[in-house]
Amino acid sequence: MAMMKRAASSALRSLIASSSTFTRNLHASGEKKKIVGVFYKGNEYAKLNPNFVGCVEGALGIREWLESQGHQYIVTDDKEGPDSELEKHIPDAHVIISTPFHPAYVTAERIKKAKNLELLLTAGIGSDHVDLKAAAAAGLTVAEVTGSNVVSVAEDELMRILILMRNFLPGYHQAVNGEWNVAGIAHRAYDLEGKTVGTVGAGRIGKLLLQRLKPFSCNLLYFDRLRIDPELEKEIGAKFEEDLDAMLPKCDVIVINTPLTEQTRGLFDKNRIAKCKKGVLIVNNARGAIADTQAIADACSSGHVAGYSGDVWFPQPAPKDHPWRYMPNHAMTPHISGTTIDAQLRYAAGVKDMLDRHFKGEDFPEQNYIVKEGQLASQYR
Amino acid sequence: MAMMKRAASSALRSLIASSSTFTRNLHASGEKKKIVGVFYKGNEYAKLNPNFVGCVEGALGIREWLESQGHQYIVTDDKEGPDSELEKHIPDAHVIISTPFHPAYVTAERIKKAKNLELLLTAGIGSDHVDLKAAAAAGLTVAEVTGSNVVSVAEDELMRILILMRNFLPGYHQAVNGEWNVAGIAHRAYDLEGKTVGTVGAGRIGKLLLQRLKPFSCNLLYFDRLRIDPELEKEIGAKFEEDLDAMLPKCDVIVINTPLTEQTRGLFDKNRIAKCKKGVLIVNNARGAIADTQAIADACSSGHVAGYSGDVWFPQPAPKDHPWRYMPNHAMTPHISGTTIDAQLRYAAGVKDMLDRHFKGEDFPEQNYIVKEGQLASQYR
Repeated sequence: MAMMKRAASSALRSLIASSSTFTRNLHASGEKKKIVGVFYKGNEYAKLNPNFVGCVEGALGIREWLESQGHQYIVTDDKEGPDSELEKHIPDAHVIISTPFHPAYVTAERIKKAKNLELLLTAGIGSDHVDLKAAAAAGLTVAEVTGSNVVSVAEDELMRILILMRNFLPGYHQAVNGEWNVAGIAHRAYDLEGKTVGTVGAGRIGKLLLQRLKPFSCNLLYFDRLRIDPELEKEIGAKFEEDLDAMLPKCDVIVINTPLTEQTRGLFDKNRIAKCKKGVLIVNNARGAIADTQAIADACSSGHVAGYSGDVWFPQPAPKDHPWRYMPNHAMTPHISGTTIDAQLRYAAGVKDMLDRHFKGEDFPEQNYIVKEGQLASQYR
Repeated sequence: MAMMKRAASSALRSLIASSSTFTRNLHASGEKKKIVGVFYKGNEYAKLNPNFVGCVEGALGIREWLESQGHQYIVTDDKEGPDSELEKHIPDAHVIISTPFHPAYVTAERIKKAKNLELLLTAGIGSDHVDLKAAAAAGLTVAEVTGSNVVSVAEDELMRILILMRNFLPGYHQAVNGEWNVAGIAHRAYDLEGKTVGTVGAGRIGKLLLQRLKPFSCNLLYFDRLRIDPELEKEIGAKFEEDLDAMLPKCDVIVINTPLTEQTRGLFDKNRIAKCKKGVLIVNNARGAIADTQAIADACSSGHVAGYSGDVWFPQPAPKDHPWRYMPNHAMTPHISGTTIDAQLRYAAGVKDMLDRHFKGEDFPEQNYIVKEGQLASQYR
């Protein structure tokens, strides 16, 4: 494979990884591992909820379990630059766990330094913070807790569609500012009923969104590489669109539900936004880099995009001067939709399960793999 | 009837109204009417959207139609006190049209002064701004555009449930304030999936909400005087609760969907809120006076109620010092949910239809009547 050329320095490791029998025996040997978890800090919130396992302090609730088996478990939120806590542990970490909410960017350079690295786990969904080609070339396994927070994200998307369509935020601002001006809200508030909603991507999250949109009596469209199972498609009543650029001008609302890949990076640039209907509402809980930051901000300023809401930015944390914090008619939040308390409990359980299987040399559930034996999962190719 | 005792001064008018044949002939005679519409001002927003018919300037889009028939059409937002524009026209108005969003409070005193009054129309749903007993005793007809904005309100309720459950607003505040603190949001953000949602009232709006909640895999409960049609109940999967106070402690989310009547005024007082689960979320798009203002504010401050969202207040417009503007964990807006552009077009059409029928001496669609021939509709009795 072409990608193997880029991995001369990790030839030995690749060789080991390519022999899955040997790898498994190694894992099954009871070796003590160093596991590094990179999560967001809980600070004063950490103790407010016993189920708040997704923060540094909660540490996915697996510290006792790991340490009782003799493994070392380092947890930090300090992830950027050469002096960070993460960087310090890169050279001898066997496993790095991170989340999309506070992503540890595992670059080719870091992979090169990580001589012991075997496994990269995403507590959640979306492993684009890892240089997947470099990981594959180095023979690493990359896996995520597929399905752990798809419901959480789909619910949040429907909330954002409604917040934009109903023009919620100007009303909220009036309430807190002592004002009462119904016209200032109503002149651009609409029902969702009867509108055309298109999802760019109809994987697990996109499908769940479409199902939740069903009773709203919208005109539902979807674009994807693959058609939804015909029975489900009929049940949801969504129409397949083969051509993205033909779908976009039909949509009152566009929801982005694709992974970030080389194909989707910058997909919503100036030209593509221009193809959307004037006054379109865009929801993006997928990845910030799928949209061109300045193009979105400009289109919100001109009014071509009447509202933009999402919880994803690039980079994360978003800098203080990120234009999406200041553009008109936005309903942005930090990256949150996939890290509800319910989602945390599910992805913590999924990470524990995969670590347990890894220690025992067992395979993961097939749908969890993003990189397995040097091969990228199909959606990342 | 007992209420007739209160209407000695309008005996003659009652006599006329009680003879529907005579009334109809009178209406059919082509008499020129004075119609007063009380709506919210559009101001600078009035011209931004040609479909913005619900404001004073839009005047429901019926001015030309009314004036071409020789009727007089006064439209104002000035509705309070003895020097208001509304008060000036009370003595000789034949028809008063108002909305719940900017309600003309038609008190017994005003009804007494309104010697020509025949008809009170609500452009929207909910006629509690009218003293219905006094209107009935005076032989007036009160009608609303039943169904015109039920979808609009139900959609908005689901938005509010999600905004509270997902803890949206603290995230939005971080985005605009240049912050990034996922923990500050995530420690009290939950999925809606699996939670228990109870609606107090399952009339038109309550049913539409339950239908929209169906795909969220919640545990759905409803309390009402009447059971939902068994087939629809089964389709939605909602469970009937006979006893409100037995339902409340089961609910993670409570949505208020009853009209404001003597039975529901102050229904959510200190005692009833105490019966709710600690951490309950409450959505109220019905009427502000169904809840006790201070009891809700106190329960939000103590944390017993973890979130309160609604678009209804008492009185309206809400004063600058209304406690619901300042209590923690609220997601309030001015009264907006039933006045989306789509809803405005529907209730404007419904008002026009009823005026046309009134001029021709024809009956309205039966479900529109709130007071007909001295009788209150069943839900207001």
